[in-house]
Amino acid sequence: MDPNVADAIADDVARALRRAGYPVLVGISNRHFHVTEKDWRVLFGDQDPKPLRPVRQPGQWAGAETVAIEGPKGRFPKVRLLGPFRKVTQVEVSRSDAMVLGLEPPVRGSGSLKGAAPIRLAGPKGSVEVREGLIISQRHLHLGLKDSEDLCVRDGDVVRVRAGTGGPRELVFEGVLARVAKDFALEFHVDTDEANAAWLNNGDRVIVL
Amino acid sequence: MDPNVADAIADDVARALRRAGYPVLVGISNRHFHVTEKDWRVLFGDQDPKPLRPVRQPGQWAGAETVAIEGPKGRFPKVRLLGPFRKVTQVEVSRSDAMVLGLEPPVRGSGSLKGAAPIRLAGPKGSVEVREGLIISQRHLHLGLKDSEDLCVRDGDVVRVRAGTGGPRELVFEGVLARVAKDFALEFHVDTDEANAAWLNNGDRVIVL
Repeated sequence: MDPNVADAIADDVARALRRAGYPVLVGISNRHFHVTEKDWRVLFGDQDPKPLRPVRQPGQWAGAETVAIEGPKGRFPKVRLLGPFRKVTQVEVSRSDAMVLGLEPPVRGSGSLKGAAPIRLAGPKGSVEVREGLIISQRHLHLGLKDSEDLCVRDGDVVRVRAGTGGPRELVFEGVLARVAKDFALEFHVDTDEANAAWLNNGDRVIVL
Repeated sequence: MDPNVADAIADDVARALRRAGYPVLVGISNRHFHVTEKDWRVLFGDQDPKPLRPVRQPGQWAGAETVAIEGPKGRFPKVRLLGPFRKVTQVEVSRSDAMVLGLEPPVRGSGSLKGAAPIRLAGPKGSVEVREGLIISQRHLHLGLKDSEDLCVRDGDVVRVRAGTGGPRELVFEGVLARVAKDFALEFHVDTDEANAAWLNNGDRVIVL
């Protein structure tokens, strides 16, 4: 065999073995919203958001407060804040949720709101209409710097993720975008539809292929 | 190369090419119920079920009638009949639905009701409690005899199915059970959670791997 081919195969095998021994925790996103301070004041007035519990990504937390989100066909009365404040207001739902609302948001990475669906948020003090504010989150992988090195995954890489192994609905997610940052915790983010399709629960482990 | 190995590889490649050129239509199952004639009479009395529209599998149809299904935490008021009458009453929901109901049904093939969750059906004339009646349908492939031959898939085979290619959520479903019968139409059956996870619509095409 050509020694270059042999080397390439050896590298692939070594990487696969390394990744197989380095499981990634699953984080399942239920519908939630991110909000600018300006929109927050319209929705909640002078009251500041109250962090309720931290989430796995450092610096982020689920807030005590919820809003209603409303579409032409339906509404969800209690959609939770994910803080802290952001530069844009953004609501994330599953495709199942979108059907209840009667809206057709695109699948997007967080912050990519061009072409997002319009959505109305209603809080105790007022309402906000966001013209491009509703997306279905694109599944993705968060990695810290050490995770990136250990898993041989760089920022921007598109990887495959095997999920639900040992359960009744194993599958392989294609086209998973990897994001590396020093303040990221290693985590594979999916929404509730994806979690149910693979029979996943929060904290389950998946393997990067 | 060993001629036997070469032959095996050639066979695999030929089969993969054949399957790649033979797309399978997706059928998405929303929550529905099958019913015995005895339970039907309790729910609807003397009135007979009215077929509303045929489904792709020959001899089966969606009925005009719906029942409410009820669990400890929630209910769905309009769950449609899938006829004709069967030997057992069976309700199929998604995992998302099961969470709304507050029940934990297992993933099962149709008719495998041992260990199924209890469920209550309420019709216009009366209610039925089925002690083992609620399942989450296991995704599966229906094939007629010619499909079986053309796709090199036999009854009972477990195959992989690539879905959502070209869309934002491509994935590979592992462990898909194939069922072959002369009166089956070629179709890949998933529930709404699985369809949303792969961004599928009814009539989309998937590839058996």
